[in-house]
Amino acid sequence: MHKKQKLKIVPLGGMEEIGKNLTVFEYGNDIIILDCGLAFPDDEMLGVDLVIPDTTYLVKNKEKIRGIVLTHGHEDHIGALPYVLRDIDCPIYGTRFTLGLVAHKLKEHGLMGRAKLKSVSQGDTIRLGVFEIEFIRSNHSIPDVCCLAITTPVGVVFHTGDFKIDSTPIDGSMIDLARIGEIGRRGVLLLMSDSTNAERPGYTMSESTVSVAFDEIFRANIHKRIIVATFASNVHRVQQIINCAHQFGRKVAVSGRSMLNVISVAIELGYMKVPKGIIIDIDDITKYQPEKLVIITTGSQGETMSALTRMAFSDHKKISLGAEDTVLISASPIPGNEKSVYRVVNELFKRGCEVIYESLAEIHVSGHACREELQIMLGLVKPKFFVPAHGEYRHLMRHAMLAEKMGVSKKNIFLMSIGQVLEVEENSARINGSVPAGKILVDGLGVGDVGNIVLRDRKHLAEDGIIVVVVTISSDTKEIASGPDVISRGFVYMRESEGLIEEIKVCASKSLENCKAKNTCDWNTLKTTVKNDLSDFLYEKTKRKPMILPVIMEI
Amino acid sequence: MHKKQKLKIVPLGGMEEIGKNLTVFEYGNDIIILDCGLAFPDDEMLGVDLVIPDTTYLVKNKEKIRGIVLTHGHEDHIGALPYVLRDIDCPIYGTRFTLGLVAHKLKEHGLMGRAKLKSVSQGDTIRLGVFEIEFIRSNHSIPDVCCLAITTPVGVVFHTGDFKIDSTPIDGSMIDLARIGEIGRRGVLLLMSDSTNAERPGYTMSESTVSVAFDEIFRANIHKRIIVATFASNVHRVQQIINCAHQFGRKVAVSGRSMLNVISVAIELGYMKVPKGIIIDIDDITKYQPEKLVIITTGSQGETMSALTRMAFSDHKKISLGAEDTVLISASPIPGNEKSVYRVVNELFKRGCEVIYESLAEIHVSGHACREELQIMLGLVKPKFFVPAHGEYRHLMRHAMLAEKMGVSKKNIFLMSIGQVLEVEENSARINGSVPAGKILVDGLGVGDVGNIVLRDRKHLAEDGIIVVVVTISSDTKEIASGPDVISRGFVYMRESEGLIEEIKVCASKSLENCKAKNTCDWNTLKTTVKNDLSDFLYEKTKRKPMILPVIMEI
Repeated sequence: MHKKQKLKIVPLGGMEEIGKNLTVFEYGNDIIILDCGLAFPDDEMLGVDLVIPDTTYLVKNKEKIRGIVLTHGHEDHIGALPYVLRDIDCPIYGTRFTLGLVAHKLKEHGLMGRAKLKSVSQGDTIRLGVFEIEFIRSNHSIPDVCCLAITTPVGVVFHTGDFKIDSTPIDGSMIDLARIGEIGRRGVLLLMSDSTNAERPGYTMSESTVSVAFDEIFRANIHKRIIVATFASNVHRVQQIINCAHQFGRKVAVSGRSMLNVISVAIELGYMKVPKGIIIDIDDITKYQPEKLVIITTGSQGETMSALTRMAFSDHKKISLGAEDTVLISASPIPGNEKSVYRVVNELFKRGCEVIYESLAEIHVSGHACREELQIMLGLVKPKFFVPAHGEYRHLMRHAMLAEKMGVSKKNIFLMSIGQVLEVEENSARINGSVPAGKILVDGLGVGDVGNIVLRDRKHLAEDGIIVVVVTISSDTKEIASGPDVISRGFVYMRESEGLIEEIKVCASKSLENCKAKNTCDWNTLKTTVKNDLSDFLYEKTKRKPMILPVIMEI
Repeated sequence: MHKKQKLKIVPLGGMEEIGKNLTVFEYGNDIIILDCGLAFPDDEMLGVDLVIPDTTYLVKNKEKIRGIVLTHGHEDHIGALPYVLRDIDCPIYGTRFTLGLVAHKLKEHGLMGRAKLKSVSQGDTIRLGVFEIEFIRSNHSIPDVCCLAITTPVGVVFHTGDFKIDSTPIDGSMIDLARIGEIGRRGVLLLMSDSTNAERPGYTMSESTVSVAFDEIFRANIHKRIIVATFASNVHRVQQIINCAHQFGRKVAVSGRSMLNVISVAIELGYMKVPKGIIIDIDDITKYQPEKLVIITTGSQGETMSALTRMAFSDHKKISLGAEDTVLISASPIPGNEKSVYRVVNELFKRGCEVIYESLAEIHVSGHACREELQIMLGLVKPKFFVPAHGEYRHLMRHAMLAEKMGVSKKNIFLMSIGQVLEVEENSARINGSVPAGKILVDGLGVGDVGNIVLRDRKHLAEDGIIVVVVTISSDTKEIASGPDVISRGFVYMRESEGLIEEIKVCASKSLENCKAKNTCDWNTLKTTVKNDLSDFLYEKTKRKPMILPVIMEI
């Protein structure tokens, strides 16, 4: 028998960051990819639409790739597929609802033709090369979620994906703790587990507790129209809203592209139970009394172009809000979105709406396990090695401390960065080397053409604007033939700053004359001199540092 | 006796917004100004340093102004003084600590010579024109805070400023509820009250409760150096840290310019009690064992240039952090700052520090009254008219609803916007007209020279960058003499996009040739055509819309 190789585990995203989850499992000639997500840009990433993992390593090893396995259908787990599939050709495995969302996404990108989508059910096991992957029923904030138990030649790796323990989920299917316990009892070499809520004590409330609050609010607002904003992918939340509407004899209209999309996928695949005739077209809302209507909408994060934001700012073609409306925001602001959400809340209040949001009622629960649940997972799986996954460093750190408390030996816990390679054998594991990893920025159609230099320039332009100084000089005499002319954008309001603009011209002329006097009229010196002199002059004058672009033409 | 005039109350800031608090009280020929604060820029205000109120109305009526009265020394109540005092010459009244901070600020701006600072004590009453202003002891998160009772010819207006009810404050001076009750019993015409925490149920915890958590943390970290970040102006928080250090036999070093400044003002004026010899110079920290040290620092909001951020990113000249350090962040992230704070927390964990922050311990309390306290204030003052102040619309709205519940008649409650004029008589009040009001943006030395057009350009530049197309054409033949040349910044990385840059040149040339063919070679048409053609071409090609600046020179 030939010597056993090492299992390599390489997270290309999701470590020390929120989003773009993608983990590579490699053994000999086989690679499988667990999830393939995107991340949303930081404030620093000006103008960037989304962020995907650097998959150089996968492209280089593409002949080894046996498949992509998906835990669930959220963007941070499937959103990079349209980009990664450009370079990689392999089957994609996921549950029906997950693949329903993937299919929609690939169609939008015109990639459906080449995608090989393979549907699995919770409880199924598939084999990809040396790997055997079991899809285990789980709970989260989207239907048809799985934890994955991956049997490898060196042992079993258990990956929770995103999860919570919901004993009363809307679809009645609690996470399969019995199966997880069984796998744990047989022996798990390594656990990778969701760290998102590793700072939060206690338990995450069940999704079904939201119904209680909804019921109360519907009862108290019997004479008003009700608008509910939530995450489109939270099918069970939408189901509860529809149930409540049904119970109170209201019709339901839907606004927002992603909400319409997810609901149609959910209904088509049977993940949502909708009483006949309850859903009406948004164009028909005028046919019903306000108190007979519920409108379900996107925009729970205050996104600029979302349906709720447009309603709040009277910019929605079909819905205008006023004193007869009660608006529920059934979501928490994701860190960074607070100001946008409150901007919308303020505007809704100004329209006269009643607004019920996070700080005021229990109309949202998290989809991620809190500390007690994380401990249960650790206690059931009883892994030899532990890698906290899905979180910023602070989350991973807290989760690592929790694992230690639960009996995992400190030396067997690995806080990983993206690109690092964890080599795992039957009795040992260690971080050994790394592969290329990072953030690939997507801006419009450009993938990766916006990098640090472009971002640095955007930041500079954003903060102080730009000044273009245009001058022609005679190539013989080096005298100024025309100009200097000055164009500025984002610096000062030009029409009200004529004096300053004149001074800029004078300053540029002087620079050029100085160069001529010193006989240093090569193109580079001219440009650098004008740039530095102007920069000093403007900083002295305004304490600002606009970008300065000298355009010097010789004739 | 001549007919009574109306009292005019005009908020020029602090309504439907957080910060830049400034309220004008006008009666006949007399104006007083209550507070004169700045606000911090929104994310939308790219490159802007700070925001001050539009004081056009005050400048126009400057001969009427009898004085500025200050409630306390926070930036959102005093920060606009250096700008407003350029146009207005009047005495400034405040308590000693407030004026200590004002004096420091005015010195920095070189304005100390012309400032007339008039110190008052809590309990004092001053007369300015027809107005009699009583400074009443209050609690907040800075020493020497006052509520103001303003006796006007039409009745008493009570303004809470920022407040909380702290029965066990660090300086032992609880808000003077007895006096407030007395004033209330004699009859208050109008109450203006702090709405910051109007959404939060219950009571705000006393500042002194923080000591309990500090004590516990100091005890548990007996072998480690302790670093505490908090707001510089929170003198009582700093006092508690010093007390705790003293108790545990540690020396205290201070880092961060504003922290050093406030502490020196506080010690000088006697607002802080510092055991002799406990404060050491930051340069001397190497002389002490880590476990014998506490470092108090700025940076609790993750501000880029702050001392704590520099420590976290190993960029601090005098302090480097590691596994022997425990860092306390004794503050909540102000909405919008979450990401910056967590970036610092992550980095501190990576250095090996223990980090204790908001989600993990009770080491911060708010400085603003929660709902129960707001009710007590309403119950004591029992005003005829009510104006909720200091808050976004949602806060003002919640506070208005609370006032109604507390017995103020709905028609007597006014939700005001900045610039609106509330006319108050003995038995009536109504909003009647408005004066200029708004946000004046300060960028470097520029005050008001950055407006909507400049911000729009900055946003455009930030999102998609700029392309400058330079071409010279012969004035006779209209042929291209040189160029087109293309310079781009913040659009694509030029060195890796040579193909695209070439295509841009071709596109620009074609536009110019088309103009020539159509004989429409006036300068404006040339520019507009090049701009539109390029914009269409680039959007088609990249789905981005960079700013396009055509520079066309004739020779």
